[in-house]
Amino acid sequence: MFQAYAATEPMGRLVPFSYDPGPLKDDEVQIRIEFCGICHSDLSMLNNDWGSTSYPFVPGHEVVGIIEDKGPLVPDLALGQRVGVGWFSRSCLTCESCLGGHQNLCARSEGIIVGRHGGFADRVRCHFSWATPVPDSIPPETVGPLFCGGLTVFGPILDNVRPVDRVGVIGIGGLGHLAVKFLRAWGCEVTAFSSSTDKTAEAMAMGAHRVVGSFDAKKLTELKGYFNFIISTVNVPLDWSAYINALGPNGKLHFVGAVLEPVSLRVFSLLAANKSIGASPLGSIRQMRYLLEFVARHELFPTVEVHKLQDVNLALNELKDGKVRYRKVLDCRD
Amino acid sequence: MFQAYAATEPMGRLVPFSYDPGPLKDDEVQIRIEFCGICHSDLSMLNNDWGSTSYPFVPGHEVVGIIEDKGPLVPDLALGQRVGVGWFSRSCLTCESCLGGHQNLCARSEGIIVGRHGGFADRVRCHFSWATPVPDSIPPETVGPLFCGGLTVFGPILDNVRPVDRVGVIGIGGLGHLAVKFLRAWGCEVTAFSSSTDKTAEAMAMGAHRVVGSFDAKKLTELKGYFNFIISTVNVPLDWSAYINALGPNGKLHFVGAVLEPVSLRVFSLLAANKSIGASPLGSIRQMRYLLEFVARHELFPTVEVHKLQDVNLALNELKDGKVRYRKVLDCRD
Repeated sequence: MFQAYAATEPMGRLVPFSYDPGPLKDDEVQIRIEFCGICHSDLSMLNNDWGSTSYPFVPGHEVVGIIEDKGPLVPDLALGQRVGVGWFSRSCLTCESCLGGHQNLCARSEGIIVGRHGGFADRVRCHFSWATPVPDSIPPETVGPLFCGGLTVFGPILDNVRPVDRVGVIGIGGLGHLAVKFLRAWGCEVTAFSSSTDKTAEAMAMGAHRVVGSFDAKKLTELKGYFNFIISTVNVPLDWSAYINALGPNGKLHFVGAVLEPVSLRVFSLLAANKSIGASPLGSIRQMRYLLEFVARHELFPTVEVHKLQDVNLALNELKDGKVRYRKVLDCRD
Repeated sequence: MFQAYAATEPMGRLVPFSYDPGPLKDDEVQIRIEFCGICHSDLSMLNNDWGSTSYPFVPGHEVVGIIEDKGPLVPDLALGQRVGVGWFSRSCLTCESCLGGHQNLCARSEGIIVGRHGGFADRVRCHFSWATPVPDSIPPETVGPLFCGGLTVFGPILDNVRPVDRVGVIGIGGLGHLAVKFLRAWGCEVTAFSSSTDKTAEAMAMGAHRVVGSFDAKKLTELKGYFNFIISTVNVPLDWSAYINALGPNGKLHFVGAVLEPVSLRVFSLLAANKSIGASPLGSIRQMRYLLEFVARHELFPTVEVHKLQDVNLALNELKDGKVRYRKVLDCRD
């Protein structure tokens, strides 16, 4: 039996929960969990905001741990090896997206906490392709957040950003603080946009060259035409036209935060300077491997606050209250 | 004195108009105009829709003609040589966009009909960099539309489209019919979206593999996830979310038509499959040269209806009434 924490209803408290995972599939690995990060998507799923949650619900999709069992079809991975798992636990391997290296865009993928149980537990399983080996030099308690928050911002950086670019990061939280660290090491000129003025010193220490208020209309106007790329990690509406105005020729405003309010977009605001707007989910498996190599080489570790698994409700409440600097992680070891 | 046709007020009739262009600048060429295409932007400018028109106003920014004079700083171009000129008559050559080969995005560029007189005339001038030599094998009366309508759709194709892609073209008019021809020769699978069912046979003959009604919600739903790239050449609002839904992973909806009504964009509709939305104006000088080579090699000439310059008001009225198949061109020769 796997020992986990589950909610039995939307917005419910998490309580101890045991379940039988059944026989290990031939292409799966079983991971003894060391740590699991807490992502805003865990809260969204807990509340059934997206209508895809089934209960009892075990959150957790920023897992790091040790392989303790594997099926006979698993290549390359060894028992005792440290791996991480993020949002996806399986993809089909045969669609155009999978074959093209975009397994994260597979329409038949399996989310690790969608219709199955996640990483707020002592153990979890996944298809071998989504279990990514972790370099020893990355402190284990910081690994989990790289697998969702980290990959979510690193994918668009890989796809869009050159070291000569001027880049803005909107929202300096779980995702944004990693984006700032990555972009600084990427070689970019980095502007952090935050609504919390008390994060200025920390954002600068993480690598920002300047910090601007997310709602500072005057400063945004001064930055007209400045940025090559702006990545938004927030899930609240902002004055998006002001950010589009702050893009230079060929610039892109890219969302990784799931803003629910529609963006009112004027085609003319993009047209004159070949600007664009995009959005993306988690990155691909290959991007995850690049991320871990890059993070290990530059020592760009998430800034985390660690709680014991049994204190999960406390940790969730602090996250709801915006009291996290910058990512909560659960210690799932005995 | 240059002999032209000008309007003296918004929406006014064009009447014969002479003007003295002053001394030729050292870096300019003077072109004896053979033909000039009529673009929807000529109508927009004639009506001062964008607030940037000065009167008397001489439209015309799809010029082809023969160099009859040049300043001492003009390299490479020879008297008697056929060249074309499109929307731009000059760019600064020193900003980041110009230096990066994106002269079309120069913030200090000069539009040939913005604050100066265009190609509904016997002569026009421009900076040498925007006078592009035209291969002899392209019929002269078809050249003009390549310099605005053609380049406007060819730029995004060059930047975004691979021959293996499935591409949709919305609107089969002056720009769209060229996009269909270009994309077919580019090697793509081409779908034409048109609100005019009577254009089906012609669109197929131009290279479309299928024609779908622009408002055909059922067919658009069937095409869910199908396209790599959709280019919209229309300036009317459509059900953009249906078109975004018809994009596959990493797909892009790209506007070259200046839709004035805001697009209500849901970030979620882009996020799950890394989709994006873009828009662009005319292409660059280098893209124009690629375009002419490609058009000459594949004989992808605009489908035009030629009127004498003195019949310009008749031609403009037919364009307003949507009676053009597919581009009006004025014969500006004596």
